[in-house]
Amino acid sequence: MSSNNMIIAQSGGPSPAINASLAGAVARAMASEEIGVVYGALHGLQGLLNRQIISLSQQMKTAKDFELLVHTPAMALGSCRYKLPHGDDAVMEKVLAVLRDYGIGYFFYCGGNDSMDTVARLSAYFRSKGEDIKCIGIPKTVDNDLAVTDHTPGFGSAARFVAASFSEIMIDSSAYPSPSVTIVEVMGRNAGWLTASSVLARAHGFTGPHLIYLPEVPFDPKAFLAKVGEKMEKEPNVLVAVSEGLRLANGNYVAQAESGAIDMFGHRALGGVASALEALVRGAYGDRDWKIRSVEPSVLQRVDLHLASGTDLKEGQDVGRCAVDAALEGKTDLMVSIKRVSNHPYLVRYETAPLMDVANHERTVPLEWICDEGTNVTQDMVEYLRPLFRGETQVEYEDGLPHFFKLNRTMLVAPGEG
Amino acid sequence: MSSNNMIIAQSGGPSPAINASLAGAVARAMASEEIGVVYGALHGLQGLLNRQIISLSQQMKTAKDFELLVHTPAMALGSCRYKLPHGDDAVMEKVLAVLRDYGIGYFFYCGGNDSMDTVARLSAYFRSKGEDIKCIGIPKTVDNDLAVTDHTPGFGSAARFVAASFSEIMIDSSAYPSPSVTIVEVMGRNAGWLTASSVLARAHGFTGPHLIYLPEVPFDPKAFLAKVGEKMEKEPNVLVAVSEGLRLANGNYVAQAESGAIDMFGHRALGGVASALEALVRGAYGDRDWKIRSVEPSVLQRVDLHLASGTDLKEGQDVGRCAVDAALEGKTDLMVSIKRVSNHPYLVRYETAPLMDVANHERTVPLEWICDEGTNVTQDMVEYLRPLFRGETQVEYEDGLPHFFKLNRTMLVAPGEG
Repeated sequence: MSSNNMIIAQSGGPSPAINASLAGAVARAMASEEIGVVYGALHGLQGLLNRQIISLSQQMKTAKDFELLVHTPAMALGSCRYKLPHGDDAVMEKVLAVLRDYGIGYFFYCGGNDSMDTVARLSAYFRSKGEDIKCIGIPKTVDNDLAVTDHTPGFGSAARFVAASFSEIMIDSSAYPSPSVTIVEVMGRNAGWLTASSVLARAHGFTGPHLIYLPEVPFDPKAFLAKVGEKMEKEPNVLVAVSEGLRLANGNYVAQAESGAIDMFGHRALGGVASALEALVRGAYGDRDWKIRSVEPSVLQRVDLHLASGTDLKEGQDVGRCAVDAALEGKTDLMVSIKRVSNHPYLVRYETAPLMDVANHERTVPLEWICDEGTNVTQDMVEYLRPLFRGETQVEYEDGLPHFFKLNRTMLVAPGEG
Repeated sequence: MSSNNMIIAQSGGPSPAINASLAGAVARAMASEEIGVVYGALHGLQGLLNRQIISLSQQMKTAKDFELLVHTPAMALGSCRYKLPHGDDAVMEKVLAVLRDYGIGYFFYCGGNDSMDTVARLSAYFRSKGEDIKCIGIPKTVDNDLAVTDHTPGFGSAARFVAASFSEIMIDSSAYPSPSVTIVEVMGRNAGWLTASSVLARAHGFTGPHLIYLPEVPFDPKAFLAKVGEKMEKEPNVLVAVSEGLRLANGNYVAQAESGAIDMFGHRALGGVASALEALVRGAYGDRDWKIRSVEPSVLQRVDLHLASGTDLKEGQDVGRCAVDAALEGKTDLMVSIKRVSNHPYLVRYETAPLMDVANHERTVPLEWICDEGTNVTQDMVEYLRPLFRGETQVEYEDGLPHFFKLNRTMLVAPGEG
């Protein structure tokens, strides 16, 4: 059997542009003469090991299929949180056996820094076995925490959802004459990029968010309460952005520290950081006539595509396409990265970076972009963010609901099929 | 001074189509020859009493202004939670004095059942003083709990947000191979209409939500846990819709009962019903390999207009226009209502109903539309809901963010001005 077939898989958490990258890569592969069958592995490496493999050559037919896939949230192939075991090649051997069976010459893995480590280790193993399988990583994550690349596909759309939600929560607060404090929790365990993007809501006359807390700076509850009091003297409605990963100086998560709450059945309630801070403000200022509330948009910030950034979905597709380009040029062991060429006009160039430069690194927000004693971000951050969330997209609706593209996950194919 | 001027105000909680109704009423009034100046009172009756009055004739100029206002969430005039005191006419006397000063012959109040009570009582008082001021109520609420009218403006858009969010959360859950239970909390303290609308997500191949709990039926924690276990035997990812107003058989709110939690600072954490049920499921099934989580879209469901129902925003404008029509026909003491003429095709007729038929009544979900032991809704409910959330709208974006219309709330006008 020839070994010019390709397989692609998705890993990690759902992210708005990950299906756009899948669409971009598959479209490019199907247009090439060098690549044979285009396979997809369900649920990342875990599915690949279980031979849960479908034929994308079969299942993706029309331009409309690709268009819908670009605008479909979550992960069409499904994901996993599987980590390659260290110090034991048995799993990699099994992966290689599956790839050999399916005649794979091109292996693409779309994910975050853990996934890039997986690709790097598999690639080294394949080479050690004398196999010529091109291994390319495709970046994605709403956390925007990958090294080397200027930003990651998925981030711009999530950032736009966050910014729009903050402006909407702001206008909602302003409906009432009574003062209010609203604390909104944003995704990002260790990197504050997405929380920082709330700053973009400060446009069209909105003054909030008035306080922005990123996980890069240790959180001081006393200073926080003082800041809230200060802001409330100036503003009728104070809006606070907090990262889910906020930690105290001792390293404990704020969410953990403040909500070791036990319900009437003896179960521990897993409160988020926003509700912990709501309780804190309530404790300190509960005697005021303030409305105090917390909002946690939760998974909606990574799965809502109505507000997706046109720039982000386009770049998502480009990155997928460039991954296939790189493999066809004989490159391997690389992740596609985005290099920002200029801001005015916004221009990017796609490059590649060694997987090991990305694997297991975590790019957090530079401290010089955080200001006002850790409660705000600088104009440099605003300039960095602004182009990424621009541009509208057209989600297609069917009888009122967004129309999603679905791959048939039960139509598994055997080697030689597809 | 003539008394052919008009004043309009908004009351209660923000609702997607309330600004559409404002736009519809103001446009109709400005096109009429009988009506003089069109005033707006800020923050409902409370602002009116404080003479926080602006001139909409001055501030709403172009077709574009009206178009933007229709697509602006929350409440352009601001709201209040003010209730007219009983057994004392002093406040109504003060209201009348303001209306006389401003030469008001037409009074419009947009809100829910409390607001209709306010209009009814003011109207009776004006009449008792020999004043001919036409008083018309304009319905709005995401809760859809007003009597007489088939449905309320605002509900269709919130319902669409809820249904789309459920389908998105569903596709997010399906990304992982591990089983999951996701509990999503929907607004609606006493009426389950909005929670019921989650059923619309059961389209395009989605099987969820698998359990739907409305406040109309007492909640039984044991039966709930059994149902979750049952569903999890059949489905990898179970999605549960719960109303924020869910109560136990003893009348206590579930949220209250299950989350009397105290944090490390001794503050009571105000958990919602979804997190209370998450803790419940965790307590019963925490030893399984299930991912158990809760999501609370909170105010986003009433303030997000990207997904607004085109039908809803159109009806919102129509209802505002019809309110002015009714007043110009010499009618008073009425609320505009929507009568559904047919479902296929969907046709409505606008009528009017005596305010007292609406005031202080609460229209809950009929029990015959709730089935499967209080865990599902019937096909009749689906037929009722489906037309209301159809149709897209075009939100205008400015540099990535939704472009909101803003009235200048500081430009107050004195009697005779505007």
